[in-house]
Amino acid sequence: MPDPSPRPLRNVLFVMCDQLRWDYLSCYGHPSLRTPAIDALAARGVRFDAAYVQSPVCVPSRMSFYTGRYVGSHGTTWNHVPFAAGEQTLGDHLARAGRRAALAGKTHVVPDFPGLRRLGIEPESPEGRLRLDGGFVELDRYDGHAPPGSESGYADYLRAHGYTGADPWTDYVIAARDEHGEKASGWLLRNAHLPAIVREEHSETAYMTDRAIEFIESQGDEPWVLHLSYIKPHWPLMAPAPYHDMFRSSGTGRIVRADPASENPHPVLQAYRKAHEDCLSYGREEVVRHVRPTYMGLVRQVDDHLQRVLDCLERSGRAKDTLIVFTSDHGDHLGDHGLGEKELFYEQAVRVPLIVVDPRPGADATRGTAIDAFVESVDVVPTLLEAIGLDPAPHVVEGRSLLPLLEGRGAGDWREAVFSELDFSFRSARRVLGLPADGCYGWMARTRRWKYVHWKGMRPQLFDMLHDPDELVDLGDAPGCDAVRAEMRHRLMEWSLNRKARTTVDAAAIERRTEDWRRNGLFIGVW
Amino acid sequence: MPDPSPRPLRNVLFVMCDQLRWDYLSCYGHPSLRTPAIDALAARGVRFDAAYVQSPVCVPSRMSFYTGRYVGSHGTTWNHVPFAAGEQTLGDHLARAGRRAALAGKTHVVPDFPGLRRLGIEPESPEGRLRLDGGFVELDRYDGHAPPGSESGYADYLRAHGYTGADPWTDYVIAARDEHGEKASGWLLRNAHLPAIVREEHSETAYMTDRAIEFIESQGDEPWVLHLSYIKPHWPLMAPAPYHDMFRSSGTGRIVRADPASENPHPVLQAYRKAHEDCLSYGREEVVRHVRPTYMGLVRQVDDHLQRVLDCLERSGRAKDTLIVFTSDHGDHLGDHGLGEKELFYEQAVRVPLIVVDPRPGADATRGTAIDAFVESVDVVPTLLEAIGLDPAPHVVEGRSLLPLLEGRGAGDWREAVFSELDFSFRSARRVLGLPADGCYGWMARTRRWKYVHWKGMRPQLFDMLHDPDELVDLGDAPGCDAVRAEMRHRLMEWSLNRKARTTVDAAAIERRTEDWRRNGLFIGVW
Repeated sequence: MPDPSPRPLRNVLFVMCDQLRWDYLSCYGHPSLRTPAIDALAARGVRFDAAYVQSPVCVPSRMSFYTGRYVGSHGTTWNHVPFAAGEQTLGDHLARAGRRAALAGKTHVVPDFPGLRRLGIEPESPEGRLRLDGGFVELDRYDGHAPPGSESGYADYLRAHGYTGADPWTDYVIAARDEHGEKASGWLLRNAHLPAIVREEHSETAYMTDRAIEFIESQGDEPWVLHLSYIKPHWPLMAPAPYHDMFRSSGTGRIVRADPASENPHPVLQAYRKAHEDCLSYGREEVVRHVRPTYMGLVRQVDDHLQRVLDCLERSGRAKDTLIVFTSDHGDHLGDHGLGEKELFYEQAVRVPLIVVDPRPGADATRGTAIDAFVESVDVVPTLLEAIGLDPAPHVVEGRSLLPLLEGRGAGDWREAVFSELDFSFRSARRVLGLPADGCYGWMARTRRWKYVHWKGMRPQLFDMLHDPDELVDLGDAPGCDAVRAEMRHRLMEWSLNRKARTTVDAAAIERRTEDWRRNGLFIGVW
Repeated sequence: MPDPSPRPLRNVLFVMCDQLRWDYLSCYGHPSLRTPAIDALAARGVRFDAAYVQSPVCVPSRMSFYTGRYVGSHGTTWNHVPFAAGEQTLGDHLARAGRRAALAGKTHVVPDFPGLRRLGIEPESPEGRLRLDGGFVELDRYDGHAPPGSESGYADYLRAHGYTGADPWTDYVIAARDEHGEKASGWLLRNAHLPAIVREEHSETAYMTDRAIEFIESQGDEPWVLHLSYIKPHWPLMAPAPYHDMFRSSGTGRIVRADPASENPHPVLQAYRKAHEDCLSYGREEVVRHVRPTYMGLVRQVDDHLQRVLDCLERSGRAKDTLIVFTSDHGDHLGDHGLGEKELFYEQAVRVPLIVVDPRPGADATRGTAIDAFVESVDVVPTLLEAIGLDPAPHVVEGRSLLPLLEGRGAGDWREAVFSELDFSFRSARRVLGLPADGCYGWMARTRRWKYVHWKGMRPQLFDMLHDPDELVDLGDAPGCDAVRAEMRHRLMEWSLNRKARTTVDAAAIERRTEDWRRNGLFIGVW
């Protein structure tokens, strides 16, 4: 273990939103959406202006957040891929120090039951639970976009508050009454303007905030690590009043669309637009204009409840000894580029808000500033671990602690590129393109100037982020860009080769055991 | 599971030698060493003339043989690196079908006790044992070059045959009497010409052959998979009579040495030559001439005992339903290039003999021939699995079954390059070069024409294998080779990016679950 910082923090509050686009916060420049609580966080800490996720898809991105490892290292490449039982998480690193990470909200971890069976791990043993739950101790887990299961108290809570029936989530939380008094489902975008039947204080965001506050208050002076993981503004796009029409009269912003004559759309992009229902819907401007206000309302609702958590920290005296991280698992195209949802590597999907608040005096130099160093979601785990004085396990964790940046140092030796990955084998696009299950993969490398996407078995994509920041012209096969593409491939190669596979031995052990054979009675090549 | 072959084989005999150089067998063209048993295997099967190991070091190479995965995938990068508890081995793939792999001899698996503790796996549970033993059921495990431990019966066997004392291996097996009647240790190369005190029929090679024959005979008609893993001709270089001087009067071959004026030695090569005792010893011609005959004797001894195993297969009727694989974990420089031992990527170290015998009629077309397709040690596991009709787990295993090549098909779609890796962080060379523990890595890509080695933080190596098959001139920084180096880097990138990380879900599951959300009640982007 390295020397702990002079005064480690005691607690960590790691807040994640789901599908929150980097630019849908006022502190990141949104023109009409106000998010005062998150803005206040940015004022108390650092706003990272070039933060990228390791995959623009929920589960692979989250597993990178929770392991500090790239997707090609932890292997959970898409939402349907179980999280390999042998992988190490934040929870494992905390457990070595006798600590744990509590969860309120979503992880989306897909359990690897076959792996547990193969390894002879009882699912209900403490070690089994930690594996199945992605390293967290679940206070209340709710992954959203489906009726809450037994791992959450939300269904019972709803019933206790008068929302009766077997599935109150479907009947009240993502349901509205339309203009004719008929039940209208939140699954349909056309209903996005209607208020959910559920009262705001009983909504998903309110419920999970209550759980987080309860936990913090229950801990008293005991140190804690809490992952508060909101399932919003992810679909179903239905908000409770007053958030359902809070932004309906304000601007819904421009829709970024390339000129078809110059776009040079990549085959994967074309397949997405052609085969995926979300892209077909979001390809229509009236759909985009109809749903964006609801998305904004759901963001504002998160902001209002986050204020309650921040108030709780102040009230309980925890603000001064708690590291706060606020981020999202990926963004949302919201109709830009003719796409709905996430996936693909446009900035709308792969770039996220990231705010880190370190209350210690050492971070005063950067307080309230923005840092444009390239940071990645794999940096969160080492940041948390270092902040509370624990071993950041650099032989396992592939990210870097952000604390040096917060302390106003280390930027000179910082990374020059960020990387992200996409496995689209579970998508219809695979069938449109006639590809096998192992033929659907893209890798993004992004520098200040260029965004390069290497696609398996297809031509690459290339965007000039300086002259074409909206990514409207794909230079993937443009003549004259050979040298750029070669340089970006070189970066991808170095990144890929240097991922951390040697996870069972640390640098100290290597130092100790270098050329140690004579000490162990082995004489090699001695005349 | 794919359709099994029309008539799967029942048994597998997977024979490995330790540190057997590809060209030290008569069927591979050695001018003076005769190996009739191995030659007979080649006559009954296929001799692969371009077989490469995934690392020219024991443990990482073996873990690739046992997992069918590249070193950067299984993570055991050197001899002191524990084999991660979560990795899947041949034994796991067999276990899914209720079968097991028996071991007689060496695996060199380094147990991952911390990993087992983290996962809550009892070391003495069946699953724990399988993990600790690299997926094998150990009949008798002896890793060699140290006194045998309790996992082997060899020490007791020696004592039962009159070799008394606490450590009969040190006292009799790697000990001789010199010309003055003094004890002389096999650890010292200077004693390589002396006969070991142990009688040949009680030597390591004889003992482990007995264990293999006992096992095969005990199985009767029950199908089996046996890994017979000889610890020779690996050092200590001391052979029992008559093998100690069988080749002392025959030629010991040329010593491959570059012209210092044109070699352009790489910094890693220079560090090896400067800092490693084996290189300092083998840099002297008299040492090389002194030890090569003993090495040859140890190879011939393996050959003689392997004949006993083949006789047993014939006698028991098992020759007709047993797949036989004969190979080595890596080679030995034996003084070539001013190097002893292995590591680095010269053909002497990274290329191995590989003979596969498939007794079925389908393989008659290639029987007794040589195939020069590029094959790798990761190909062994899928070959074994396919031969006995089991799922070759292509979502986990990175190699390819060799059976299509044996059946005279599939060569058109075969790989164009082979890859190997070296982690030298545990070697003195690291300190000579002033590198940190995570700064010592090389990756080899070899095509028909070129061998390229990419070194972390250093210039690459490049050899023209057509015009310089002895690898005497390093073109790693030669002007005029930019395009070649770029092409080889591209190959390395593609190889590295496409390793198999998504090991928890197979292609059938992906097909089944493609765009399945509507079936599961999720409506995404529906207007």
